[in-house]
Amino acid sequence: MSERIRIGIAGYGNLGRGVEAAIGKNPDMTLVGVFTRRDPAQLTPLNPSTDVFSMDDLTAKRDDIDVLILCGGSKDDLPIQGPELAAHFTTVDSFDTHARIPEYFAAMDAPAQASGTTALISVGWDPGLFSINRLYGEALIPEGDTYTFWGRGLSQGHSDAVRRVDGVAAGVQYTLPAEAAIDAVRSGTRPQLSTREKHTRECFVVLEEGADAASVEQAIVTMPHYFADYDTTVHFISAEELARDHQAMPHGGFVIRSGNTSDTAAQVIEYRLALDSNPEFTASVLVTYARAAFRLNKLGQHGAVTVLDVPPAMLSPKSGAELRAELL
Amino acid sequence: MSERIRIGIAGYGNLGRGVEAAIGKNPDMTLVGVFTRRDPAQLTPLNPSTDVFSMDDLTAKRDDIDVLILCGGSKDDLPIQGPELAAHFTTVDSFDTHARIPEYFAAMDAPAQASGTTALISVGWDPGLFSINRLYGEALIPEGDTYTFWGRGLSQGHSDAVRRVDGVAAGVQYTLPAEAAIDAVRSGTRPQLSTREKHTRECFVVLEEGADAASVEQAIVTMPHYFADYDTTVHFISAEELARDHQAMPHGGFVIRSGNTSDTAAQVIEYRLALDSNPEFTASVLVTYARAAFRLNKLGQHGAVTVLDVPPAMLSPKSGAELRAELL
Repeated sequence: MSERIRIGIAGYGNLGRGVEAAIGKNPDMTLVGVFTRRDPAQLTPLNPSTDVFSMDDLTAKRDDIDVLILCGGSKDDLPIQGPELAAHFTTVDSFDTHARIPEYFAAMDAPAQASGTTALISVGWDPGLFSINRLYGEALIPEGDTYTFWGRGLSQGHSDAVRRVDGVAAGVQYTLPAEAAIDAVRSGTRPQLSTREKHTRECFVVLEEGADAASVEQAIVTMPHYFADYDTTVHFISAEELARDHQAMPHGGFVIRSGNTSDTAAQVIEYRLALDSNPEFTASVLVTYARAAFRLNKLGQHGAVTVLDVPPAMLSPKSGAELRAELL
Repeated sequence: MSERIRIGIAGYGNLGRGVEAAIGKNPDMTLVGVFTRRDPAQLTPLNPSTDVFSMDDLTAKRDDIDVLILCGGSKDDLPIQGPELAAHFTTVDSFDTHARIPEYFAAMDAPAQASGTTALISVGWDPGLFSINRLYGEALIPEGDTYTFWGRGLSQGHSDAVRRVDGVAAGVQYTLPAEAAIDAVRSGTRPQLSTREKHTRECFVVLEEGADAASVEQAIVTMPHYFADYDTTVHFISAEELARDHQAMPHGGFVIRSGNTSDTAAQVIEYRLALDSNPEFTASVLVTYARAAFRLNKLGQHGAVTVLDVPPAMLSPKSGAELRAELL
């Protein structure tokens, strides 16, 4: 094997831990270390032999790192950190605020172009793998409709909304795709589906002492933006049940393209993810795309790019000849 | 819109007809004409305004064609035609003899490199879209297993085998994925599956007059390579039923990657096609990839390439900025 790709991790939450684990499953990569804004001495990595450094030491390590994986959040961390770090490193990040991607792309493109680095942005499964499948779907079947369903999965934003309701001590929210809607889409009939028809929502809530269940339920199911447009079920459980049954972070979903190549021929393409751990899978996707970012940079493709710009072959440690013989 | 991509079709069977139809659904393309080894006057294209030329006139039209879509068969046509035409045209073909792809790649690469053309080979769904998903699956989840299932679909090769049996006047064969096997794979348990457990086969046979049904059935279900390793059901039907119920060419299947990112987290990626018309869909895929072949050639990527080398964005008529805003 040629020399291993040297990876740095910037930020160490659920995603950073997942990236640390995923690098261990890719023998052509090596982890230089984790970089944190916290006190490095206070941070315990998954693997005791992983080096932990202060974020302030990053630029000094510039020549030791081929690709820096940015594991900060899309709201507060990446918009600031991303452009600063793209001026020094080839980066991969999971920026996932869909509406702000064009703006973030421009903010990453300028420093990366100026510095000869490559900034591979918005990597993950949505945006990411789902985006790729939306593109393949509409390009391969021009006359058709694309449907995205999410779940069954834990939604962080909706869980936060539930926890802000008066009388709620703790809780989680799962988004569920509606089976009837998926079956209708799979049939090739290209149904028009309302928000309420596509997904349902299920909440597991621990009440504060003395709180009134009926009014908590009413406050949740009528909450605008988050729940009012959906059929929502609220289950009241004990703190023990919450701790026992709802610690995992499953997620997933479907991208379905349904269209016609002629009046009599319906064609359906379905892409589905069923994930036991959303952060571990997202981390695994980031690490795979770090290989592509490294190669794109070596080929002179500088500036911001997205998963839509990455040829599939660049994701694999195998050679073109191996891929043609084994996978084509 | 910039100038349209000028497409030629070499060979006019089911696939060529599908390509002609698919070009009509892509407004950034225009069809120069169909080229045939038959007498052009005897060929009736789908669209009466489509020009039909002799294959002998192809090289004279070299400057009028941006991409030539080769619609010949993998067994007899493409191994000869492909390298000859790649010396003059940027080409897209559906060469699908998996075991001979490396050899065909080399045979196309040499003339294309020498002439500055691009030969995009083995385009379709398997090889093709399924290959891409096998690659994504193993790259994204390195610790795992990949499963490919085919069907429910009409198999040309197995239908031919049925029709060669003594006493068979006509017939078709459908390959069916076994539901129990798919459910087991979807569960994330990574089962080991035998050939017999993965697929079943279903034949619809019209007997010759006086033929013995029991011995025909026995000859089919015990046929080595084709049926002996599968559970096969044989239905005897009338010529009228065959004509009424078995003229369509449906197909499809699944590529499923099942793996673990940690001991406790199973992750499953599923890609599924459900096609009413296999030739129409394959044709639509070829036409989509003609756009990419045109662009790769303009970018100076000469020689043979495969779907694994094509960035998703190159398949879409939309600009990078549009794709990022609408699909990412």
